Amino acid sequence: MTTPLKPLDDAATSFARRHIGPSPRDVAAMLETVGAKSVAELMAQTLPGTIRQAAPLDIGPALSETEALSHMRALAAQNQVFTSLIGQGYSGTIMPAVIQRNILENPAWYTAYTPYQPEISQGRLEALFNFQTMICDLTGLDVANASLLDEATAAAEAMALAERSARAKTKAFFVDQNVHPQTLAVLRTRAEPLGWQLIVGDPAKDLDGAEVFGGLLQYPDTTGAVRDPRAAIAKLHDKGALAILAADLLALTLIASPGELGADIAIGSAQRFGVPMGYGGPHAAYMAVRDALKRSLPGRIVGLSVDSRGAPAYRLALQTREQHIRREKATSNICTAQVLLAVIAAMYAVYHGPEGLKAIARTVHRRTAMLAAGLRKLGFAPESETFFDTVTIEAGAKAESIIARAEGERINLGRDGSRLRIALDETTTADVVEAVWRAFGGELSYATIEAEAREALPAELKRQRPYLAHPVFHAHRSETEMLRYLRKLADRDLALDRAMIPLGSCTMKLNATTEMIPLTWQEFGSLHPFVPRAQAAGYETMFADLEDWLCRISGYDAVSLQPNSGAQGEYAGLLAIRGYHAARGEGHRTICLIPSSAHGTNPASAHMVGMEVVVVGCDAGGNVDLADLEAKAKAHSAKLAAIMITYPSTHGVFEEHIRDICDVVHAHGGQVYLDGANLNAQVGLSRPGDYGADVSHFNLHKTFCIPHGGGGPGMGPIGVKAHLAPFLPSHRTNGHPATDRASAHPVGPVSAAPYGSASILTISYIYMLLMGGDGLTRATEIAILNANYVAARLDPHFPVLYRNERGRVAHECIIDPRPLKPTSGVTVDDIAKRLIDYGFHAPTMSFPVAGTLMIEPTESESKAELDRFCDAMIAIRKEIAEVEQGRFTIEASPLRHAPHTVHDIADDDWNRAYRRSEGCFPAGTSRTDKYWCPVGRVDNVYGDRNLVCSCPPVADYAQAAE
Amino acid sequence: MTTPLKPLDDAATSFARRHIGPSPRDVAAMLETVGAKSVAELMAQTLPGTIRQAAPLDIGPALSETEALSHMRALAAQNQVFTSLIGQGYSGTIMPAVIQRNILENPAWYTAYTPYQPEISQGRLEALFNFQTMICDLTGLDVANASLLDEATAAAEAMALAERSARAKTKAFFVDQNVHPQTLAVLRTRAEPLGWQLIVGDPAKDLDGAEVFGGLLQYPDTTGAVRDPRAAIAKLHDKGALAILAADLLALTLIASPGELGADIAIGSAQRFGVPMGYGGPHAAYMAVRDALKRSLPGRIVGLSVDSRGAPAYRLALQTREQHIRREKATSNICTAQVLLAVIAAMYAVYHGPEGLKAIARTVHRRTAMLAAGLRKLGFAPESETFFDTVTIEAGAKAESIIARAEGERINLGRDGSRLRIALDETTTADVVEAVWRAFGGELSYATIEAEAREALPAELKRQRPYLAHPVFHAHRSETEMLRYLRKLADRDLALDRAMIPLGSCTMKLNATTEMIPLTWQEFGSLHPFVPRAQAAGYETMFADLEDWLCRISGYDAVSLQPNSGAQGEYAGLLAIRGYHAARGEGHRTICLIPSSAHGTNPASAHMVGMEVVVVGCDAGGNVDLADLEAKAKAHSAKLAAIMITYPSTHGVFEEHIRDICDVVHAHGGQVYLDGANLNAQVGLSRPGDYGADVSHFNLHKTFCIPHGGGGPGMGPIGVKAHLAPFLPSHRTNGHPATDRASAHPVGPVSAAPYGSASILTISYIYMLLMGGDGLTRATEIAILNANYVAARLDPHFPVLYRNERGRVAHECIIDPRPLKPTSGVTVDDIAKRLIDYGFHAPTMSFPVAGTLMIEPTESESKAELDRFCDAMIAIRKEIAEVEQGRFTIEASPLRHAPHTVHDIADDDWNRAYRRSEGCFPAGTSRTDKYWCPVGRVDNVYGDRNLVCSCPPVADYAQAAE
Repeated sequence: MTTPLKPLDDAATSFARRHIGPSPRDVAAMLETVGAKSVAELMAQTLPGTIRQAAPLDIGPALSETEALSHMRALAAQNQVFTSLIGQGYSGTIMPAVIQRNILENPAWYTAYTPYQPEISQGRLEALFNFQTMICDLTGLDVANASLLDEATAAAEAMALAERSARAKTKAFFVDQNVHPQTLAVLRTRAEPLGWQLIVGDPAKDLDGAEVFGGLLQYPDTTGAVRDPRAAIAKLHDKGALAILAADLLALTLIASPGELGADIAIGSAQRFGVPMGYGGPHAAYMAVRDALKRSLPGRIVGLSVDSRGAPAYRLALQTREQHIRREKATSNICTAQVLLAVIAAMYAVYHGPEGLKAIARTVHRRTAMLAAGLRKLGFAPESETFFDTVTIEAGAKAESIIARAEGERINLGRDGSRLRIALDETTTADVVEAVWRAFGGELSYATIEAEAREALPAELKRQRPYLAHPVFHAHRSETEMLRYLRKLADRDLALDRAMIPLGSCTMKLNATTEMIPLTWQEFGSLHPFVPRAQAAGYETMFADLEDWLCRISGYDAVSLQPNSGAQGEYAGLLAIRGYHAARGEGHRTICLIPSSAHGTNPASAHMVGMEVVVVGCDAGGNVDLADLEAKAKAHSAKLAAIMITYPSTHGVFEEHIRDICDVVHAHGGQVYLDGANLNAQVGLSRPGDYGADVSHFNLHKTFCIPHGGGGPGMGPIGVKAHLAPFLPSHRTNGHPATDRASAHPVGPVSAAPYGSASILTISYIYMLLMGGDGLTRATEIAILNANYVAARLDPHFPVLYRNERGRVAHECIIDPRPLKPTSGVTVDDIAKRLIDYGFHAPTMSFPVAGTLMIEPTESESKAELDRFCDAMIAIRKEIAEVEQGRFTIEASPLRHAPHTVHDIADDDWNRAYRRSEGCFPAGTSRTDKYWCPVGRVDNVYGDRNLVCSCPPVADYAQAAE
Repeated sequence: MTTPLKPLDDAATSFARRHIGPSPRDVAAMLETVGAKSVAELMAQTLPGTIRQAAPLDIGPALSETEALSHMRALAAQNQVFTSLIGQGYSGTIMPAVIQRNILENPAWYTAYTPYQPEISQGRLEALFNFQTMICDLTGLDVANASLLDEATAAAEAMALAERSARAKTKAFFVDQNVHPQTLAVLRTRAEPLGWQLIVGDPAKDLDGAEVFGGLLQYPDTTGAVRDPRAAIAKLHDKGALAILAADLLALTLIASPGELGADIAIGSAQRFGVPMGYGGPHAAYMAVRDALKRSLPGRIVGLSVDSRGAPAYRLALQTREQHIRREKATSNICTAQVLLAVIAAMYAVYHGPEGLKAIARTVHRRTAMLAAGLRKLGFAPESETFFDTVTIEAGAKAESIIARAEGERINLGRDGSRLRIALDETTTADVVEAVWRAFGGELSYATIEAEAREALPAELKRQRPYLAHPVFHAHRSETEMLRYLRKLADRDLALDRAMIPLGSCTMKLNATTEMIPLTWQEFGSLHPFVPRAQAAGYETMFADLEDWLCRISGYDAVSLQPNSGAQGEYAGLLAIRGYHAARGEGHRTICLIPSSAHGTNPASAHMVGMEVVVVGCDAGGNVDLADLEAKAKAHSAKLAAIMITYPSTHGVFEEHIRDICDVVHAHGGQVYLDGANLNAQVGLSRPGDYGADVSHFNLHKTFCIPHGGGGPGMGPIGVKAHLAPFLPSHRTNGHPATDRASAHPVGPVSAAPYGSASILTISYIYMLLMGGDGLTRATEIAILNANYVAARLDPHFPVLYRNERGRVAHECIIDPRPLKPTSGVTVDDIAKRLIDYGFHAPTMSFPVAGTLMIEPTESESKAELDRFCDAMIAIRKEIAEVEQGRFTIEASPLRHAPHTVHDIADDDWNRAYRRSEGCFPAGTSRTDKYWCPVGRVDNVYGDRNLVCSCPPVADYAQAAE
């Protein structure tokens, strides 16, 4: 009875224990394998002592999952969910619950990687194919990509496409004065470094004299007017310019498509197809083009090809256009798409079907017509006789009081001086319309206005062409059918919920459930990006903390949360460097040094800000060749703008001389852009801002747990030292603080919304809340331990290519099967595909070194899973040995026939050189819980030669979907 | 511009369109197939005109999913989430987010059916096996079942088990005066009709003279005291009585187990292992027994057996004990378990492991010791020196003000007059402890009390025996490992998210996502069942609506929401009839007529209320033999208590003479219990209360969309005509309105909580909100159309056994493969297992007619899915024809080898009489999306002969789990 209370051990129930795979006992065993006495010793051997940070990372104590969720509830309560009728490209929408639960909240969908390995990605590839089909159908154009970051960046990409492809070789681009203002702002940011002039005006008048390579019109425009763009399109074509329409997908169910009207390119947002506004994002933008432009289309495109048995199989098409292949020739740095959101939008269309979408559009239009009729009655005639869902009213002196009364009704209106904009959507009820009337000073009843309202879509623009005729848009009208379709597609794919995804440089760590939960709360989801700031107080608090924490982690002085992908972050970072030089009168500094091992987005981003790339060589150890660097820096000293360097290097090693590299560049007047892709090896151990870097982006979808979503969303905030802070991206809309940062706005916005994809910042924020500084540091240490463990286990079988001077890799390692090619004929592809038979996603293939594999285990994988993976790799090495020993040729081996499918195993005639079970259930794998990929090895060449990116003949499709 | 607005078609986007499978076009095609001109005509042919209800069902207009969720948010806001320290068997708990999202919110888990088909249920069977292992380990007993409804009904079942099994053949049972009051109340209800006397007292004194067949003690008791039960157990054993401990699972991680202490039976609740209180439920109760009692253990038991290849396979063991087999000999009507909640509790233990559970228990105990130390300092010494998590304080005159101050702190205390009870749990923070001190009048600081607090578990009761040593409780400590384990198990099972489950009498319809969403809101989940009523105003509003709607649907006058399963509803209904007769001085009426076709729970329930069953025959058409009924009713006229009849009949037909049947029974003084299992054929078309029934239960998990959860939870509210309303179950706890219904309380409670499993009532409520009266009626019509469509398509191949006079079946149909046995040797088992190869769960087998299959498609299945199922059945008929034609014998046929697994197909030696692909991919099935069951046909006999219900040798287990 008198025993004193024993102290408690919180570690057993802490979140860090949930996030980090290896148990304390595993860690001890793994240290033994790698030959280190302690984690501390291993860290000392891995990181150069010169860069280790002095003080432990302090971002406050870790919270429990329960505490973190109550903290988030408190933040959520600070956000006020008004009804936003602001428009400007963002609409209220209803995500069907079956889609929310079974896609957005389902790890089978959200933890998947980009579908570079098509055999294990057929589910999301089909979903993206549906997206492309939907976009082609609604826009009336031939080829669509599988999404872009947001409407504004899609417009910028369209402008660049026009510049590349138009007959007219001018440097000017026309922009409708009635495009969404954030679109215009992003276009300005993009055009300026490339020396392109924007001509902003009324297409009816200002196009006449202009010599341009393209023109962008908004349809319906930002004021709501539905104008016939045909005359403007004809004028553009006459000039040899391309015509781009930014079109609203819901409106396109009722009005003529861009394709019918003669446009070359259509862009826009798919947000209103079921994706919450999320205070700006994420959501999927789209781009569709005429057939002639398809090989210039930026972003990823899903195409239909055939597999090893000739059966239809989806894959990413035309990948040779991508930046990581084209490097210095790249015309766009687009990398991350918005796959998860594109999937949601596509499924929204699948679930509603053409008749459902049309019913929604007609309801929205009907309510808008009612609204307009009521406003007219109250003496406020809309500016335009034609509209779809938005009307603009010149309210004169009454604007202020109307806005105030609307806020009293908890309604936000759009505003441009005394012109008020009211944009309706599928969530708008009759009650809301009546409340708007009250804000305009009238007590009208919805029912009584009915007789006076009139359709307001121009007769000459009524949609004629049908859309979404494909069976997939007709077969899933009941929730049961929809649920089963989503399950079926999910089951075709291999994601983190089934096995590790050991992707070098992509950091596929745990995306914890608790981190995902607030994302679907309406207090985070239902905010329009341009609501008055006071309504987003919860968001603002979170942003401030997040910026502070990222500064503490990185050693930088300021952070911008605006870039909504890693590549966007690179671009924003280089814009900051460019702005800095220009402000110092050194605008002539345009040379960007990039090591040969860099990711292809680096040179592409440099090109986008008008820089010239000079490649720096690497030495045999995979490190930057310091002598070459010094020589090149010296040679280009007068024009040196920057170096872009990844650290630890893309070779998976902490180079010893990173401080020297920074010093050399600084000595020649350049700035150091340190690519944050590998920050997962540094958090809590070293800080780029301390050892010489000036700016970095942080891949929140790598290091900070935003799930990859099958290929997006991502977020790429940037951190900068104080001297670059004035050159962070700004945003003029609605007085957001990103604006205030630099009153002179030397750098414009890079994303449509002030905080990019704001809603998913909750994920990284909660991760940091749950881990605290100690937990984050521990995660880094274990990520490094895990990589060294894998290196130690695999090296006897596949040599590890690069290590530091003390024999250590960082958080990833490259293994080298190239010596086996002459002895066995095995290719890196064979190994990657054979891993599927063992139940794994392949490591990163042929990057940064062709013919090798880069493995990043992350801290979240347990020793058991690492062993399962290493055992599989070792078993594959034995299979290669069997080829070497002549048991079978490589062509006849299970390696070349991989991956094996149920089609293979059920063949009556089996005349292969190995047993069925060797093919399908190789050594050590589970039969009971086997993942079966639905198609065999996909033929890439066939797919690019026979490009099919939407709407194949129904028979083909049915077969593929079978 | 002047086109008037077109009217809108809401139907295209209504929820009914999502809930109901067939599209309007499908309906037309199906009507043609069944040979009816219209749905109305079909209904006229299906239901007797004499029972059709006059007015359309009116429960208000249907809401959209968005509207329904906002309605639920408003209700939720009316519930006040206080911190409940009430105890009494309900504790705050933390459901790990990974379990919430991936089990409770995952249709792969919650839409599964009871695992009667073991080959497609290995995932949840393993999860339940873990549950049983956990219970055996913690209780120190040999065999546990896979859950019971709640602790109070588990206690009642344990009492009945003791009565059957004890040496002592008395009719008295001892109950510790310190058991939870609701447990005592339910025991009283159960004992009284069976003539058993309850002796309630202090085990230390009152056991001495008592002659009893068993005794129940609470451990720790309801006041919180931890007393040594060994002396009482010894006394019980001396009397030839069985000793039952109601034990708290979390406490058992620190104190000696019931098995170690000599108990024969342990029961209790697994709620605090991660399952929200939910204002009473659902959660899983447990029961474990010594080995000698295992064949008397009620409820379902998962056992390990072997499959057709000799590999380990889980299955339900000892099913011959179940009521549907034993019928009149049944000793318990237990049917529904609480599978989904048992799975959650088991996974909570898997995730925390023994060290995690112990850390939680120690934290809770430590806080309680702190609390007690502080209270002592404030002059309130706990009654007991020993305690785990609960202390009771005699507060005298201060009780009232303490309770009031606690409420001011938003804290609920337990109360019994002036004795106050404070029960802590894993959610209790130091802040809460300090707030309790404030309520008791003191401003103490948690930190300063620390030195004074002492452990309060008796040294002689310290737990010695280890627990949860099995690897499954050690291998899933990271969220990644846990997530993958949950996915792996889910993938082994076939649930509604992959294919229709055409179970006759079980109504496996859509469980819509929107219906499931509020369930996991804390405003519904975090309410203790005995909070002051004012804190549950949202619940109360919902209950009132639900009762009203069920009355409108059924034609009854009053409803009790208390029974937490269908069988419990039957029991409550019969108690009402019994109470009614007794109140009229006709307590001698004890004969219950039951047709031979009835579900086995009917006679079992009759037995439980002390009635004697007289079986009424059926005629060749499957209808009640009216002449036999009249004869039996007349023969037993003086003693006739009731008839229990299912309508439409278990044969799937609307009997013409239901009114006559009711009249006959009434004429002889009996009451009509109409089993509501088949209410899905009636909602909106006919009302039992209109055509003569006096009482029915409603299976909310069949007709009203509560998902089956893999075998529970269910809810079985009952409706009664006005004369039976005073005899609905009452509940004395905390002045709940169920109490007020009958101030004299002629019938006690049947469930532990006043509203049974209150939280899942939200599901049925939202379903009704979404459908409205018209939608519900339409659902019934389509359910009947779907069944008639299946009957029409299958009849040429497998004759439909029963139809009404106009050739129509109701909402299900029985098909008869018996004639094929002599010609081919095929069994109903062969057909059921072969359906797995086609990707379907089997229909109900051999009920109500041995050797037949009963199919209920429900309204939620689309024509496409019905066709897929019918095509599979027709293809199976062709395979049977191949046996008849001599292509292979039945033993060598794919029918007998079914289901086929990957083990079969990968065999190097294939010397079967059919091709591999015929085995695995029979006609018309998809290869790409095939469901592979993890084991072959399971050997039931082997499993019952070699009973293994927990903790097999690790090697076996690893193999099975592989």
